[in-house]
Amino acid sequence: MTTERIYNFSAGPAVLPEEVIRKSQEAMWNLNGSGIGVMEHSHRGKEFMAVAERAEALVRELAAVPADHDVLFLQGGASTQFFMVPMSFLTADATADYLMTGAWSQKALAEAKRFGKVNQVCSSEDKNFSYIPEASSFKWSERPVYAHYTSNNTIFGTQWADTPAAPDGVPLVVDASSDIFSRPIDVKKHAIIYAGAQKNLGPSGVTLVIMRKDLVERGASNLPAMLQYRTHAKDKSLYNTPPTFAIYVVAEVLEWIKGQGGLAAVAKHNQAKAKVIYDYLDASKFFHGTARADSRSLMNICFRGPSEELEEKFLAEAKKRKLSGLKGHRSVGGIRASIYNAMDQAGCDALAHFMGDFLRRNG
Amino acid sequence: MTTERIYNFSAGPAVLPEEVIRKSQEAMWNLNGSGIGVMEHSHRGKEFMAVAERAEALVRELAAVPADHDVLFLQGGASTQFFMVPMSFLTADATADYLMTGAWSQKALAEAKRFGKVNQVCSSEDKNFSYIPEASSFKWSERPVYAHYTSNNTIFGTQWADTPAAPDGVPLVVDASSDIFSRPIDVKKHAIIYAGAQKNLGPSGVTLVIMRKDLVERGASNLPAMLQYRTHAKDKSLYNTPPTFAIYVVAEVLEWIKGQGGLAAVAKHNQAKAKVIYDYLDASKFFHGTARADSRSLMNICFRGPSEELEEKFLAEAKKRKLSGLKGHRSVGGIRASIYNAMDQAGCDALAHFMGDFLRRNG
Repeated sequence: MTTERIYNFSAGPAVLPEEVIRKSQEAMWNLNGSGIGVMEHSHRGKEFMAVAERAEALVRELAAVPADHDVLFLQGGASTQFFMVPMSFLTADATADYLMTGAWSQKALAEAKRFGKVNQVCSSEDKNFSYIPEASSFKWSERPVYAHYTSNNTIFGTQWADTPAAPDGVPLVVDASSDIFSRPIDVKKHAIIYAGAQKNLGPSGVTLVIMRKDLVERGASNLPAMLQYRTHAKDKSLYNTPPTFAIYVVAEVLEWIKGQGGLAAVAKHNQAKAKVIYDYLDASKFFHGTARADSRSLMNICFRGPSEELEEKFLAEAKKRKLSGLKGHRSVGGIRASIYNAMDQAGCDALAHFMGDFLRRNG
Repeated sequence: MTTERIYNFSAGPAVLPEEVIRKSQEAMWNLNGSGIGVMEHSHRGKEFMAVAERAEALVRELAAVPADHDVLFLQGGASTQFFMVPMSFLTADATADYLMTGAWSQKALAEAKRFGKVNQVCSSEDKNFSYIPEASSFKWSERPVYAHYTSNNTIFGTQWADTPAAPDGVPLVVDASSDIFSRPIDVKKHAIIYAGAQKNLGPSGVTLVIMRKDLVERGASNLPAMLQYRTHAKDKSLYNTPPTFAIYVVAEVLEWIKGQGGLAAVAKHNQAKAKVIYDYLDASKFFHGTARADSRSLMNICFRGPSEELEEKFLAEAKKRKLSGLKGHRSVGGIRASIYNAMDQAGCDALAHFMGDFLRRNG
């Protein structure tokens, strides 16, 4: 069986840095010479506690997380945060504000509706979520208990270039699952940042939550223990058995990000990677990007070919060239290249090269 | 750094079969020659779908799961099932019955209280949960919506020898986290079986739920999508991104159990393993087991030494002899040897040998 790896443009779970995989393989047999693999260590033993502390410390260091924010590692992905946030903060007579930029924003809003009123601040649904709405179009409700946005939209290939400015005093909540730590993030501007790990941070099965402590304290307290943020904050995410191995991999990915020079360096790298493909799309009359130029995602590049038939041919040939995971989301079709932190420049160059080659043969 | 492994008696996360770890290391780099590691595969791609289907098929095969039960892989551990079960089935005017055999039963009951009435069918709290109550002491409520028990009690080292018989028509729910698939289980007698994977099935971060389909359909439908069993049943546990790697490891562990000869063979093996240590305890005047003989767990063997001082000495010396994780739960103290499926006979023999040796030097 070949051990050669191919270029993986999957939207998530997604490619991981190879040095992280190598370290994980070792740790799985024997963590730091303890004689026990990382999956087998008690979550209350000193070896795993050191892993969890390292993960938290690296999150704090990389994103300059202020002391008044907790850093939690939970389970259930963004889909669980979709309801945990309103369950904790939204009541029947109150309103939460949602900025609608795609299918994940819609899912988040749908869960909030179960608990109280929701107000759509803005939406790009009129053009199939192909752009990020301008601030001039925002319609805030009078006293929202929080405002929620999705920083990057995997399905439509759009991304907020800057943090949207919520009205003074309104806690800003972001689902940053698909661009977390791909660029600097101003944590101070956010009350809650949550992200499933499986795009930029590690394997699926762990969710990073960075949350202002006053919100942790203020959340509803008549909920099951597992659904109260305070439960997890109080016990440093060790109230119950956490997904220990996933947290270990996250710590290694964070270490790798730090080794790359931190979030600013990673952002520069991600810009360069995306540029190769977007430049090609802009110059091409064969392929065309689906997102408006000013709203383009540096993580998920969505584009179409001249026909569905040629798209299918493109995808089939790409696979043979060891370029995998390029099929667009089933709800929109087309082609999507997800180029998270761990996709290297060579992968993006290989894709651009193949696009040129395909055009020469089919254009 | 040494790559030698030691005997790991941790109560969970716990030791895994070495051949499973070796396979996981390979799959992590490149799953079945796909060129992509198992953590990096899309959960909707054919490679991971095959893993998930294999995991379900093995659960069905090993435990002879009838067609009218769903097999789900969820997140959040038993602690999440503690509230998901009553949230789905218990209403304010209804009663759920709980059989109290330890700290985990108590936690499950505490969550149920948030949703409706609870009735304690029996309890061994009078003797610090050192035994499993007799059926003659059971006091069922008139029309419980379900009855819940904990099949094995990690902290107190007790285990139900047989499935407790609930009144006709009462759905029986079991938290089988710490003895799942350590012996045959009569799935037909149970409406819901749930188990965190981190003792007998794999790494932490995935929960196996085996649930009668009529209950899946009957559960409350005004809940967040992620908290409705039907959501997960409908989408074969792929409603949101599942913990893909953890599910992969579970599939490999199930394959290993099958290779051992299935649940009956594993049970025989577990009896032999526990016997070595219990026989030693019964013969010893130095150490004494804390569980009543007829209630002893084959998974967690809890015992005390003649003094706390000697217990500490025992634990410190054991560590030097590469016998790790033997400290009793912090709430009860003493010594605990957790000998789940993947702990081999040699490990149990080594522990019994060390106990004898320690006695000779300190008795």
